[in-house]
Amino acid sequence: MRFDLVGTDGRARRGRLHLEHGIVETPAFMPVGTAATVKGLEPAELHAAHAQILLANVYHLWLRPGRETLAAAGGLHRFMGWNGSILTDSGGFQIFSLRERRRLDDDGVTFSSHIDGSRHRFTPESVVAFEEELGVDIAMVLDVCVRLPAERQELERAVALTSRWAARAAAARTRDATALFGIVQGGLDERLRERSAHDLVEIGFDGYAIGGLSVGETRVEMRNAASLCADLLPAEKPRYLMGVGTVPDLLASIDCGIDVFDCVYPTRCGRNGRAMTRDGEFHIRNAAFTRDFQPLDPHCDCAVCKTFSRAYLAHLFRSNEMLGPRLLSYHNVYLLNALMADARNAIERGQWGEFVSSHASEAHLR
Amino acid sequence: MRFDLVGTDGRARRGRLHLEHGIVETPAFMPVGTAATVKGLEPAELHAAHAQILLANVYHLWLRPGRETLAAAGGLHRFMGWNGSILTDSGGFQIFSLRERRRLDDDGVTFSSHIDGSRHRFTPESVVAFEEELGVDIAMVLDVCVRLPAERQELERAVALTSRWAARAAAARTRDATALFGIVQGGLDERLRERSAHDLVEIGFDGYAIGGLSVGETRVEMRNAASLCADLLPAEKPRYLMGVGTVPDLLASIDCGIDVFDCVYPTRCGRNGRAMTRDGEFHIRNAAFTRDFQPLDPHCDCAVCKTFSRAYLAHLFRSNEMLGPRLLSYHNVYLLNALMADARNAIERGQWGEFVSSHASEAHLR
Repeated sequence: MRFDLVGTDGRARRGRLHLEHGIVETPAFMPVGTAATVKGLEPAELHAAHAQILLANVYHLWLRPGRETLAAAGGLHRFMGWNGSILTDSGGFQIFSLRERRRLDDDGVTFSSHIDGSRHRFTPESVVAFEEELGVDIAMVLDVCVRLPAERQELERAVALTSRWAARAAAARTRDATALFGIVQGGLDERLRERSAHDLVEIGFDGYAIGGLSVGETRVEMRNAASLCADLLPAEKPRYLMGVGTVPDLLASIDCGIDVFDCVYPTRCGRNGRAMTRDGEFHIRNAAFTRDFQPLDPHCDCAVCKTFSRAYLAHLFRSNEMLGPRLLSYHNVYLLNALMADARNAIERGQWGEFVSSHASEAHLR
Repeated sequence: MRFDLVGTDGRARRGRLHLEHGIVETPAFMPVGTAATVKGLEPAELHAAHAQILLANVYHLWLRPGRETLAAAGGLHRFMGWNGSILTDSGGFQIFSLRERRRLDDDGVTFSSHIDGSRHRFTPESVVAFEEELGVDIAMVLDVCVRLPAERQELERAVALTSRWAARAAAARTRDATALFGIVQGGLDERLRERSAHDLVEIGFDGYAIGGLSVGETRVEMRNAASLCADLLPAEKPRYLMGVGTVPDLLASIDCGIDVFDCVYPTRCGRNGRAMTRDGEFHIRNAAFTRDFQPLDPHCDCAVCKTFSRAYLAHLFRSNEMLGPRLLSYHNVYLLNALMADARNAIERGQWGEFVSSHASEAHLR
C-alpha cells in the first residue's frame, strides 16, 4: 500500500491510496456492506454511485457465511462480486457490544454468536489471518472498544490492551497486499488518545483509524476528539474516522485532516425513508411530498434523481414497496460520494474554505 | 392497436401486438407491477430482463397513490418511469376477493379500502375512464369474479353481469390509443365459458382475456378450461390467460394458442427464495447450496447468473439481506422472458413440438 498526499488546503487533505484493487482518491467515503452486501444495492450500482471502497465486517462474515465458504469462494471480492477495494473492520466494536455474550482476556476474546449462540474466539492474530484469507485491501486490527460514557480506568485498560493487541496483529502479518491499520482508542480523554496514538505510531501501521467515536457522545465532543487525534497522527499516513457519515460531520472531519470515512447512515436512512441532500435531510413519507414531482435532490445527477420523482418515492414508501429503500439508499450513497468528489476538487483548487461555507447551512443541523 | 398473427405451429401462435408504447412480440409474459412497481426491480432492469409490457392494477392504484396524483404525474408511465407498454387489470379480482368489504349491484360495486376502510365505487364506465386517464396501452374491463368452487347459479349470474358490464365498458371508451380487452368468465363450466366468450366476441374487443382461472382449481382443470376458451376466441385477436406464470403452465398454455400471460409467480418466488430454471425449481435456502459456486441456472445468461453464485444468494437469503429477493426476482423474470423468446423462435421455425418436449421433464411437476 502506498499513500500519496497530493495536496492540502488548511488542514484538509487531498490524497491517493494505492491498494491491491485500485486507487482510492481521498477524502473518500466507504459504504458499509457488513454481511458482504451493501444493503439493497448490487456491485454494479455501487460502481455507478462512484463507490471506490466498501467496508465489510469480520465479526459478521466469520459467523455467516463463515471462513470455509469464503475461502472456497476464492475470497470476499469474488464471493460478493465486487472488484473495487474492500476494508474489513475487525469486529471489535460488534463483539464488545455483546456485553453478556463475550469474555475478554489478555490473549483475546471469546464470544457467542448472536445468530445461533455458538462459541467463537478471536485473537489479534486470528483476525489478521482471517482478513488476509479474505484478500481484503485494508485490514483493521482487533481493538477493545468501550461504550461511552465510561470510567477512566476502563478506558485506560482498553487502550493498553488495544496497543498490545495491535503489536501482535502487526507481527502476525503475512500478506503484503493487505494493508493493516491500527485503531486509536481512548474515548473522550485527551491523555489516553495521545497515549493510544503514540503506541500505534511506534508500532507503525499503513494507516490509522480513529475508533470509539460516534458511540453516544455529542457531536461537538466527537469532532473535538477526531480533531485531536488527527493532529497526533503522522501526516504521511492515511487517517480514517470510523462511523461518520452525515454531510456536516464529514465536512467538519475533512476540515480536521481526516481522509477516509465509513458509516451505515446513508443506507440506514435510505431504508427508513430519510433522504439526504446537500441542503439538509427530509423524510420522504412526509405528506408534503405526495404530489411533489421534483427529483429527491434537484442538484443531484444520480440515476434515481434523473428518473423518479419525490411523489413516486413517497408512494413506494407508503406502499411498503422494497424498491423505495433500494432507490433511496442508492441516492444517499451517491450523494456522499459526490460530496467527497467535490471536496477533493475544492481542496485541489485551494477553495476548501468556500466549499465548507457553502454547505454550512443550519439546515444540516435540524 | 393492431395484432398481427405472424405464424402458427400446431395451435401455438407467434404474434405481434402494436401498442402505443411499442411492439409486444407474442407469446409474451407480463411481470406484475401491482402498485406501480414490479416488486424490487427498477424499470431499467425490467428492460434488461427483456420485459415488453407490465401489468398494473386499477384497484391498488385507485386507492394509492390515487387518481389525482397519477393525473398530476402525467399518467402511469411517467409516474413509475417505465416507457414500455402497460396493461391494467380492472381490479375485479381484487374487489371480489374482499368478500365482506364489497356490495355488488347491477350498476357497479361499492367497496371499502383494505388500507384505510374508506368507501369507493367502481362502475364499468368509471374503470375505463380511470384506465384511459392512466394512459395505459391495454385496459381490462371491470368483470365479476367468482371464487371456485362455486354454485352454477352464482357463476351464471357472474357471467351475465360480466357481459352487460363489458358492453357498457366498450361503449364508454374515448381514447383510441388505449386498447380494451374483454374477460371471459364462467369458472369450469363449459356452457358458461361458451356463453361468456360468445357475448364478448359479439360486443367486439381488441383482445380477449381468460379470467377466473388459477384461483384454486387443479392444474388439469385450469389447462382444460384455458384450452376450451382459446378455441372459442377469434383467431385474429390476441388471447390473454390471466394469472399463469410457471414454466410448465406457460408452455401448456402456449400450446393451446394463448398469446399473453401475467403472474406474480416469478417475483413472489424471488422474494421467497425460490429459483426458477428451465429444469425445475429449487429453494436457495436449501443446505445443498451454501457452498455451491455455480450460477443459479447454468443455462441462463442473465446478469445475476453471470455475476453471482448460488452460495452468495444462499448467504443473502440466510442473512435476510434485501439484495437476495431483488436478485432472485430479476433472474426469475428474466428466465420467463427468455423462455418466451425461445418459444417465439421455436414457433417461427416450426419446431414448437420439439421445444415443448425438451422442457417436458418431470422436474417441473415436482
